[in-house]
Amino acid sequence: MVELPKSVRIREVGPRDGFQNEPETIDTAEKVRLIDLLSATGVKRLEVTSFVRPDVIPQLADAAEVLLAAQRRPGVAFSVLIPNPRGLERALGLRDRFDEVSVFLSASETHNRRNVNRSVAESLAGLEQTLALAGEEGLRREGVIATSFGCPYEGHLPPGRVFGIAPRLIDAGRGEGGFGDTTRMANPVQVREYFPAARAALGDGVELTAHFHNTRGQGLANVYAAYEAGVRSFESSFGELGGCPVPKGATGNVATEDVVSMLHEMGAGTGVDLVKLVDAARAAQEVLGRPLGSHLLTAGPVDWRER
Amino acid sequence: MVELPKSVRIREVGPRDGFQNEPETIDTAEKVRLIDLLSATGVKRLEVTSFVRPDVIPQLADAAEVLLAAQRRPGVAFSVLIPNPRGLERALGLRDRFDEVSVFLSASETHNRRNVNRSVAESLAGLEQTLALAGEEGLRREGVIATSFGCPYEGHLPPGRVFGIAPRLIDAGRGEGGFGDTTRMANPVQVREYFPAARAALGDGVELTAHFHNTRGQGLANVYAAYEAGVRSFESSFGELGGCPVPKGATGNVATEDVVSMLHEMGAGTGVDLVKLVDAARAAQEVLGRPLGSHLLTAGPVDWRER
Repeated sequence: MVELPKSVRIREVGPRDGFQNEPETIDTAEKVRLIDLLSATGVKRLEVTSFVRPDVIPQLADAAEVLLAAQRRPGVAFSVLIPNPRGLERALGLRDRFDEVSVFLSASETHNRRNVNRSVAESLAGLEQTLALAGEEGLRREGVIATSFGCPYEGHLPPGRVFGIAPRLIDAGRGEGGFGDTTRMANPVQVREYFPAARAALGDGVELTAHFHNTRGQGLANVYAAYEAGVRSFESSFGELGGCPVPKGATGNVATEDVVSMLHEMGAGTGVDLVKLVDAARAAQEVLGRPLGSHLLTAGPVDWRER
Repeated sequence: MVELPKSVRIREVGPRDGFQNEPETIDTAEKVRLIDLLSATGVKRLEVTSFVRPDVIPQLADAAEVLLAAQRRPGVAFSVLIPNPRGLERALGLRDRFDEVSVFLSASETHNRRNVNRSVAESLAGLEQTLALAGEEGLRREGVIATSFGCPYEGHLPPGRVFGIAPRLIDAGRGEGGFGDTTRMANPVQVREYFPAARAALGDGVELTAHFHNTRGQGLANVYAAYEAGVRSFESSFGELGGCPVPKGATGNVATEDVVSMLHEMGAGTGVDLVKLVDAARAAQEVLGRPLGSHLLTAGPVDWRER
């Protein structure tokens, strides 16, 4: 078997993307307990909350309380999603409780307007301000481009449009670009072509992060295609939480434990303890009181149950 | 985007593998109705039943009735799974109602013994007889090797062991070899290496067919890896039926509609009408009276709901 590079970085987004998409707001203490369980798995990056407007997204109205209470562990970077300069100001009151910020917009004009009621250019102008301010604070910054692989309104977007936006969101030479399959349009052949083009457009110094949904079951196929194309950073959500599941009953984000299991089976290391991760997802399942969609929650890791 | 070859052959195994694994035997008329729905989707190969011992697998005791009643359509090959010469004799009473036979054994000694209470060598001897007899009848023959990618008892098998067995099950130069991930051990990196090695061992004239399970969510990742490695024939099961789901609640075979959707999104043609296929899976869901696991049943095809 060909030797593969061993270090894949997992960015766990469940505490933000997952908890935000729950119909019922999760109790702050339960959120903190789940975040602490995740921190203990060995995952190195954790999106813990977002400073969005509490009246718009009440599920994350406790952002400050969560940041204050979540246990900090050496080697685990906390990030917060920031929608605008006002959100960043709120977050900066707790500057020592997190390490990274992420900002996002949609590459699709139609999707961006429906999502945040602004044109892409308007969003970009606001986010550039946010990113500049975060840079002055010494925060690592990730620019996430939603609908990178297309959207239901505009179909598959020309990659050039995404790569044209990206440099305004991503620090040249040292930043991170997240490419989100927000509306589940990506397929592995598209992904295989996409990331080498992103690399060529954005340069070697930028970390390319892939974020896939599993709505049509292709989540791990896209992860594998991106991995084969050289991507070594993935965002995912424990328990398969979040990702705006549409239609009702559909799955959203690909589950972190399913991603990690596949990578480990492929011989690619993540530093994550899969048994602890499945335990964290099981704890989330208990908190939410319904079966969650990840495969590992039922099947267990290959080297845990079957060897 | 690189142009991909357009013709992938789908072998639908739900009426055998799926119906066999249901706890309650499905009514013969319902089976026939579902088979007729599948025949009308454009799928070109359909494993409709098996001539196993009715006392051992009562779910398929109506094999003859199913074959007699299922509608034959031009261009749709029916196959039956044959366990031994005695089973073939029973099937040959209805010789004009099917086109192909498949036989199978496990590459893993331990798994084969637990499954059929014979050594691999004993199974091979019986199946060679069966295959010879089927050849005299002019039937196309597929030799399926279960646990091709490993098993829980023996771990990942050396591919050489599988390729050593294969020539005794597969007509040199014109047969078909099925490689089954029976106990969900395959990962895409393994698959990517596997099929070129199988091609080298078995020659260009043999059709290589891949059969994956989705137990850890990697079903479509493995399909994509096999596709990239040149495989153009896949077995799968509508509605995600069958595949011996273990543990309880786990998924088994990868769903045909999920495979077809991914292939179509990738630009690879199958000849299958995805809307009709989802309708057939929905009909199976109604017959079985429980939600089935395929993603397309919930999300719908990308070009059907979202464009």
